[in-house]
Amino acid sequence: MIILIQSIDRVGLVAAISGITAKHGHNIVSLREHVDKVENRFFMRIETESETAAAPLEAEIRAVLPQDAIVTINPQPEKKIVVMVTKEYHCLADILVRNYFRTLGASVQCVIGNHSVLENICARFDVPFHLVSHEEHDKQTFENKLAQIIGEHQPDYIVLAKFMRILSPAFVKQFPMRIINIHHSFLPAFAGAHPYRKAFERGVKLIGATSHFVTDELDEGPIIAQQVIPVNHSFTASGMMKAGQEIEVSVLARALRLVFTDRVFVYENKTVVFE
Amino acid sequence: MIILIQSIDRVGLVAAISGITAKHGHNIVSLREHVDKVENRFFMRIETESETAAAPLEAEIRAVLPQDAIVTINPQPEKKIVVMVTKEYHCLADILVRNYFRTLGASVQCVIGNHSVLENICARFDVPFHLVSHEEHDKQTFENKLAQIIGEHQPDYIVLAKFMRILSPAFVKQFPMRIINIHHSFLPAFAGAHPYRKAFERGVKLIGATSHFVTDELDEGPIIAQQVIPVNHSFTASGMMKAGQEIEVSVLARALRLVFTDRVFVYENKTVVFE
Amino acid sequence: MIILIQSIDRVGLVAAISGITAKHGHNIVSLREHVDKVENRFFMRIETESETAAAPLEAEIRAVLPQDAIVTINPQPEKKIVVMVTKEYHCLADILVRNYFRTLGASVQCVIGNHSVLENICARFDVPFHLVSHEEHDKQTFENKLAQIIGEHQPDYIVLAKFMRILSPAFVKQFPMRIINIHHSFLPAFAGAHPYRKAFERGVKLIGATSHFVTDELDEGPIIAQQVIPVNHSFTASGMMKAGQEIEVSVLARALRLVFTDRVFVYENKTVVFE
Amino acid sequence: MIILIQSIDRVGLVAAISGITAKHGHNIVSLREHVDKVENRFFMRIETESETAAAPLEAEIRAVLPQDAIVTINPQPEKKIVVMVTKEYHCLADILVRNYFRTLGASVQCVIGNHSVLENICARFDVPFHLVSHEEHDKQTFENKLAQIIGEHQPDYIVLAKFMRILSPAFVKQFPMRIINIHHSFLPAFAGAHPYRKAFERGVKLIGATSHFVTDELDEGPIIAQQVIPVNHSFTASGMMKAGQEIEVSVLARALRLVFTDRVFVYENKTVVFE
Repeated sequence: MIILIQSIDRVGLVAAISGITAKHGHNIVSLREHVDKVENRFFMRIETESETAAAPLEAEIRAVLPQDAIVTINPQPEKKIVVMVTKEYHCLADILVRNYFRTLGASVQCVIGNHSVLENICARFDVPFHLVSHEEHDKQTFENKLAQIIGEHQPDYIVLAKFMRILSPAFVKQFPMRIINIHHSFLPAFAGAHPYRKAFERGVKLIGATSHFVTDELDEGPIIAQQVIPVNHSFTASGMMKAGQEIEVSVLARALRLVFTDRVFVYENKTVVFE
Repeated sequence: MIILIQSIDRVGLVAAISGITAKHGHNIVSLREHVDKVENRFFMRIETESETAAAPLEAEIRAVLPQDAIVTINPQPEKKIVVMVTKEYHCLADILVRNYFRTLGASVQCVIGNHSVLENICARFDVPFHLVSHEEHDKQTFENKLAQIIGEHQPDYIVLAKFMRILSPAFVKQFPMRIINIHHSFLPAFAGAHPYRKAFERGVKLIGATSHFVTDELDEGPIIAQQVIPVNHSFTASGMMKAGQEIEVSVLARALRLVFTDRVFVYENKTVVFE
Repeated sequence: MIILIQSIDRVGLVAAISGITAKHGHNIVSLREHVDKVENRFFMRIETESETAAAPLEAEIRAVLPQDAIVTINPQPEKKIVVMVTKEYHCLADILVRNYFRTLGASVQCVIGNHSVLENICARFDVPFHLVSHEEHDKQTFENKLAQIIGEHQPDYIVLAKFMRILSPAFVKQFPMRIINIHHSFLPAFAGAHPYRKAFERGVKLIGATSHFVTDELDEGPIIAQQVIPVNHSFTASGMMKAGQEIEVSVLARALRLVFTDRVFVYENKTVVFE
Repeated sequence: MIILIQSIDRVGLVAAISGITAKHGHNIVSLREHVDKVENRFFMRIETESETAAAPLEAEIRAVLPQDAIVTINPQPEKKIVVMVTKEYHCLADILVRNYFRTLGASVQCVIGNHSVLENICARFDVPFHLVSHEEHDKQTFENKLAQIIGEHQPDYIVLAKFMRILSPAFVKQFPMRIINIHHSFLPAFAGAHPYRKAFERGVKLIGATSHFVTDELDEGPIIAQQVIPVNHSFTASGMMKAGQEIEVSVLARALRLVFTDRVFVYENKTVVFE
């Protein structure tokens, strides 16, 4: 059983919660707890050995917590996701392969592309592909079409696997902390467009990638995972892009694994990640 | 307050312990728990906000735990250490600098060298240096002299900062899990002597360093920390050694920080490290 | 144009070779040179801007070099490879995806598996799959069948993408320095079978993967690339394996890129890699 | 012998230069060459076996190169440096230790501090310390005093080892590409003041350090080396600072080693680093 709790902090929370699990005979095999002292916020993730029904236990836990606490018990083990792409294949292919071999921790409902180049790879894995071109529609119609397809699948998360259109605040608001993006730079360095060209021009010695939840503000959402690799003078901007794509795949895969195994809490534009 | 517990695992330990801290009004700001299911072993580290006297609390905690549980409450915040060296300066100098600026988390009682070359750097930091040559004595006399000097200081830990003599099981037995070594390879690769020469001959692309507790068996004790750096064909064996020394310093510093902040548990030739 | 030279070292080699390229009006945009002083061995890789025919130039270069020098000019830009697998999909899928999108730097001629589980993923990418079971044949017949299929494709390289059978010296001898393996440990640590179990039992804090050319001696061939990732007490042996698979993919991809872009020289059981 | 050349690129440069070294009987043991095609700029570093007098050879090399080529033959093996500090000890202590054991590749002429707290550690290593307070003087007088002390030592480089005052363009102009700074962030992220606080507020998962040459524009000079380390939600801003200090030491040490072994070329606000 997995128990996730986010709450205002106060003395005795661990004792109260673990008292209830003990009473029900659950042996805790992993417990992670964090208190954000600045925000007076309590985060806890518990894994117990047995998987038995959690219904009475959940009510008892809620009863000992502050009113606005967020409690999740035994979250859906396999999430449903919709993936959105443009033209680059590398992140999508990694997701499709893991999905095919059932190691993604999620089930890909469909892929939406604003170009058609990735339709074929989806077909090869029997994953439905929807072409929604941004060129034939104004932005609102474009986003309405996206939202409609997404709505049909009721996904737990929307994964932007190199989706190169900026989504409006109105669209994002429909899926709060449920849109996961991979950004091709080590944020906050080189936010916005063309990060590899900027990195090349600046002459940096490391380039990076960042996976984050999408919020209203471009490239400013809570960061889930980041990674870098060394580059040097022998890299052109295009060479940096190729090298960077390798870690984009790696960082997004890692972020998805963390989210899909219920290890990520979000609060105040930051994440608490219990790896 | 810091509470460290190692025990046989059973249902209800977290609840019992956190119930006691809550009763005494301690707010837990960080809790790490691990259960080794193979060994049925329970490890926990708790940090609370207040620092108040722990005496009744300790007795209460002991009362709810299995007989052979190991409980430590508010361990000595500054450890006492004796450092043993041969000729290489890099790890010792790092320790002396941190000791001088009071950021080591420990207090260096003295340095023992089997050569005199590092006496001067100790003198510059007002740290007593004892020369105990291995050449003038048989091994047992040599080790008796070491043990005698160590005995005078009653250190919590003995740090082998590139001490190039192998200590006998009889010596090691006097200080179980209290001798910390830095080995100049990524163990278990290249255990024993001349790891850099072996790494050069094998043509590896990474070299490493390992900090571990010393046990009877050479280079086989529980590992605390490891790190590697890339090398390539342009490195000679001596170039690998120089590069390796940089991470030897870094790995030993990290291992000492972990041990001195009471984040390392030892069990069955392994460590549990709550970073 | 790419020029690769391996030779006994002597004074004037760079001048003689670059004199010839200059005479033909080739501008050198990248030159890497390494001398192994221990072996008195010279390695050079030159990239020039123009691509023009190299025939007279090659003869002139050979004329100024020692007799036994190995000269390659404008090596085949796209290599032909045969991939051999057992049951694990992760390395194969990565190769198939890059092959499909033409970013592998090589063309996969076929996949040979000693189990059939990976046949379907090959079919999805229109790559021929040959099942050669090791169970129905004695070792020599088994290897003869492998060699026969390989022989039909005349590949430049054979990639063992988690092929879990040990190949005999007689087989290996047919493809000297043309078989590339991914080993699931940071060699020479944990050579042989079950490296993750051994790593778990030893309690290491890093696990690794190694890509190397296959020679007669198991896991002892020249190393091309290595990489590690941190693990800790919370990893089971199976968790280490899962984490390790991520870097197996990454290390093999990197080794293949280096080999396929003609950046790897082999000499005396080591590699010189001009990245 | 070490030969460093920076020049406009044209066909035949490598041949012309290596022809001269060959004529003089010098065996090249390491040659690194890079052409920046965007800027049409040629960079070369040659190491030869013998150390013999370079005078006629230098004239001959200059004669075959474009007019404005920058040629350095057998640069001073041990550089002279002045170190400037404020209150943080970590980078300075690392430099003093290496200087004391003659492994810095440079000789520390003196240390200038705008606070007196690091005077004692300098005294312990017999390195002169000059206190130049920024509080008692206006900026120009302050910088004049710095320049005067520096002028007395004629250093090859000035190392800002956590010197927390911003130097004026007029000051910097006196020492073009000769002032090396360590910045406590992964530039260009978190340029300016308080990078650790900003990193904490942004919730990044990696923090970094950057060593660069100082130019007129704050934190915008050519980058020599960068490094990052992982952090997470459990780090306070102050914890990030402590963790960051470890890599500040490491990055600065690495940048200094590269510069002091004549492996760094500067051009157009970037560096070419032949490691």
